[in-house]
Amino acid sequence: MQTAETSTNPTDAAVDLGPATALSCRECGHRVPLGPVFACEECFGPLEIAYDFSDYDAEELRKRIEAGPANIWRYAPLLPVPADVATKPNINPGWTKLVQADNLARELGVTGGLYVKDDSGNPTHSFKDRVVAQAIEAARAFGFTTLSCSSTGNLAGAVGAAAARAGFRSCVFIPHDLEQGKVVMAAVYGGELVGIEGNYDDVNRFCSELIGDPAGEGWGFVNVNLRPYYAEGSKTLAYEICEQLGWRLPDQIVVPIASGSQLTKIDKGLKELIELGLVEDRPYKIFGAQAEGCSPVSTAYKAGHDVVRPQKPNTIAKSLAIGNPADGPYVLDIARRTGGAVEDVTDEQVVDAIKLLARTEGIFAETAGGVTVGVTRKLIENGVLDPSLTTVVLNTGDGLKTLDAVAGTGLTATIRPNLDSFREAGLA
Amino acid sequence: MQTAETSTNPTDAAVDLGPATALSCRECGHRVPLGPVFACEECFGPLEIAYDFSDYDAEELRKRIEAGPANIWRYAPLLPVPADVATKPNINPGWTKLVQADNLARELGVTGGLYVKDDSGNPTHSFKDRVVAQAIEAARAFGFTTLSCSSTGNLAGAVGAAAARAGFRSCVFIPHDLEQGKVVMAAVYGGELVGIEGNYDDVNRFCSELIGDPAGEGWGFVNVNLRPYYAEGSKTLAYEICEQLGWRLPDQIVVPIASGSQLTKIDKGLKELIELGLVEDRPYKIFGAQAEGCSPVSTAYKAGHDVVRPQKPNTIAKSLAIGNPADGPYVLDIARRTGGAVEDVTDEQVVDAIKLLARTEGIFAETAGGVTVGVTRKLIENGVLDPSLTTVVLNTGDGLKTLDAVAGTGLTATIRPNLDSFREAGLA
Ligand SMILES: Cc1ncc(COP(=O)(O)O)c(C=O)c1O
Ligand SMILES: Cc1ncc(COP(=O)(O)O)c(C=O)c1O
Ligand SMILES: [Zn+2]
Ligand SMILES: [Zn+2]
Repeated sequence: MQTAETSTNPTDAAVDLGPATALSCRECGHRVPLGPVFACEECFGPLEIAYDFSDYDAEELRKRIEAGPANIWRYAPLLPVPADVATKPNINPGWTKLVQADNLARELGVTGGLYVKDDSGNPTHSFKDRVVAQAIEAARAFGFTTLSCSSTGNLAGAVGAAAARAGFRSCVFIPHDLEQGKVVMAAVYGGELVGIEGNYDDVNRFCSELIGDPAGEGWGFVNVNLRPYYAEGSKTLAYEICEQLGWRLPDQIVVPIASGSQLTKIDKGLKELIELGLVEDRPYKIFGAQAEGCSPVSTAYKAGHDVVRPQKPNTIAKSLAIGNPADGPYVLDIARRTGGAVEDVTDEQVVDAIKLLARTEGIFAETAGGVTVGVTRKLIENGVLDPSLTTVVLNTGDGLKTLDAVAGTGLTATIRPNLDSFREAGLA
Repeated sequence: MQTAETSTNPTDAAVDLGPATALSCRECGHRVPLGPVFACEECFGPLEIAYDFSDYDAEELRKRIEAGPANIWRYAPLLPVPADVATKPNINPGWTKLVQADNLARELGVTGGLYVKDDSGNPTHSFKDRVVAQAIEAARAFGFTTLSCSSTGNLAGAVGAAAARAGFRSCVFIPHDLEQGKVVMAAVYGGELVGIEGNYDDVNRFCSELIGDPAGEGWGFVNVNLRPYYAEGSKTLAYEICEQLGWRLPDQIVVPIASGSQLTKIDKGLKELIELGLVEDRPYKIFGAQAEGCSPVSTAYKAGHDVVRPQKPNTIAKSLAIGNPADGPYVLDIARRTGGAVEDVTDEQVVDAIKLLARTEGIFAETAGGVTVGVTRKLIENGVLDPSLTTVVLNTGDGLKTLDAVAGTGLTATIRPNLDSFREAGLA
């Protein structure tokens, strides 16, 4: 058994999580059995899932995936879930659209092919459904009955929905001042929703305390004690992008950064596809995107630092407002190793980018999507992102949850229901 | 050429709309060539698409559909669109989830299998993306460059998004007092959005005037002069439900009613599948759902009338607030012929049903979804809907667009970020 700080396993029974064989420390490689543990007992490094993929034949695996369901469970052979996962009650996210964005490409001057991976099509309209769907299966395996999380908004809604459907109790924590859409969506599924007077980093610190307290005993915190499982959900973005490109790696991907988990797991997913022989082994570049008002990783990147100095967030991109990102150093490493970069844009540029994406492709993104599109534009203007290469930009959330960002947008005119009034308004 | 009132065709060239061969009057059977015409020149009855499906072999067609894309274009052989439709810029809606709703079934006492067809997964999060995607292809074929519509909110957003992506100008009309989510979503794509001082029926009357005026010349009104094409989009709901059930008809379907178009086309789609031999020929029942505050069809149904007397709407289910529904008489006919019914629920029951669906299945529906779930519950309680039969309930819209309906839902508690405050709030 691990100490109270790193383990909260309510069961000692062996678990079936498919190809997942153990947890392995990202820093020192120390291995422990699968369980609700997130930090290495040797060095306190983050644990991640180790797999046994040795039996897989590339051609067979590809066929098996293609014959699978139109959701993330088509990749069950590559995830920490039992083989029969698709039969369990879950919200089954994924297989969202990869939109060929020719209009946006023209505006940005991209000639090598531009795609938007639009995760607003998920059940609660953000990519968080992917990670929660994984965490739910881990929670089931470990016998938890209450699900929790610290959230910048989207995660709370995803946990609420998935918990309701899968039959878990839920109690989630958010900063008290989030957007109305995110608050209502997190509350409507009937779980408990607690506002914390403070920012996300305060919420997160509180959850770490709660996990060590008897009050939090038996709770599965999807992004704390279930984090190794949760995080793997983001690999499915990498898998889907490659499969939707015809089992081809994109040259460049632009990914938003809050804690940095998603970006690191997209990298992991791409590497796995190469190792499994599902895509050709050739270079790809990963770019990270932040809002200027919360840009700890971008600041460290530009300063050439390996560590990330925490910031106090102040941006309309609230879903990305994590001032002390857990996976920041790994993001820096990946951006540098792959030849990518990390960049940030102002709130004004975020709003402009939301409108640009809507106007060109009919996709209404939340502020996080404004951040990636805005950063893509900036990176092209600065000559950092090569417009002649195939580029994928993530939209990880939905504009309906951040209406205030485009609140200036509304009726062109109000008229009475007759032609005279139509003409008077100058519309004819 | 037709008169200005019934035709606004900017081109006389022959069009390729796949298996569609002509327009045929629903009342007198009179046929005219495919064009932007909506009313019969003989009897003013509504025109609908006539097809030539005579070449199709059931087994081949089924295989072709199953090999198609994960959107409505898998059914291109059954729709008024060219064979290469999937290659054109469109928003490609459809292939949304059919959720097996076991938790909801338990609460409602349904034993024969209960499913929610969740159309909130569409690009602009309502079923309207299906009809607009069709209308766009007709508009392209007829050479229109401006798209328009009268809308209760969802249609405006769907037209805005699809027009942006497909390269049309758009100018759409809505009642001036819609929900913020619907207004912003309709405006953000950059088209013109005009608020009309009046209700939907006033908006619709104004659009009919505009179509006969030089100011509206060359405009494709998706639900007026393109209505025959537009309406066919709703057939895809019937196709998807049957395919997702394993090419099986459901016994009962509960469908919301605004103009009644969707319900009539779901019936048409089911009949086609039977005629084509894609599903077994056996009875199915179609139930219509309205809000009490706008229940012209349900009122006529209960009174045993064949015609629908207009009402002045007053309900939170604004997307269904059409007091003078164009397809009302056809809905009455279908409900009676199939052994279904039309029922209505109060606004309070709508809100309860939204929460019930969220709490049991993790699906956040807009008020229209509250109407169908609420009516399903009422029909079971009244012994009208048979709980031992396989039942599909439509959720045609998204809760994020009607936040005010559940505005009472929010934070359970607000605390400071420490365990003492957590305990004080009674949460431990
Ligand atoms: C919409 C959206 N995009 C991206 C992210 C970034 O996630 P990560 O913490 O994995 O970097 C979040 C996190 O909350 C989010 O809500
Ligand atoms: C969410 C939603 N559901 C159902 C309908 C009903 O559509 P119809 O006019 O085809 O009856 C509408 C119409 O606006 C709608 O917005
Ligand atoms: Zn270690
Ligand atoms: Zn006629």
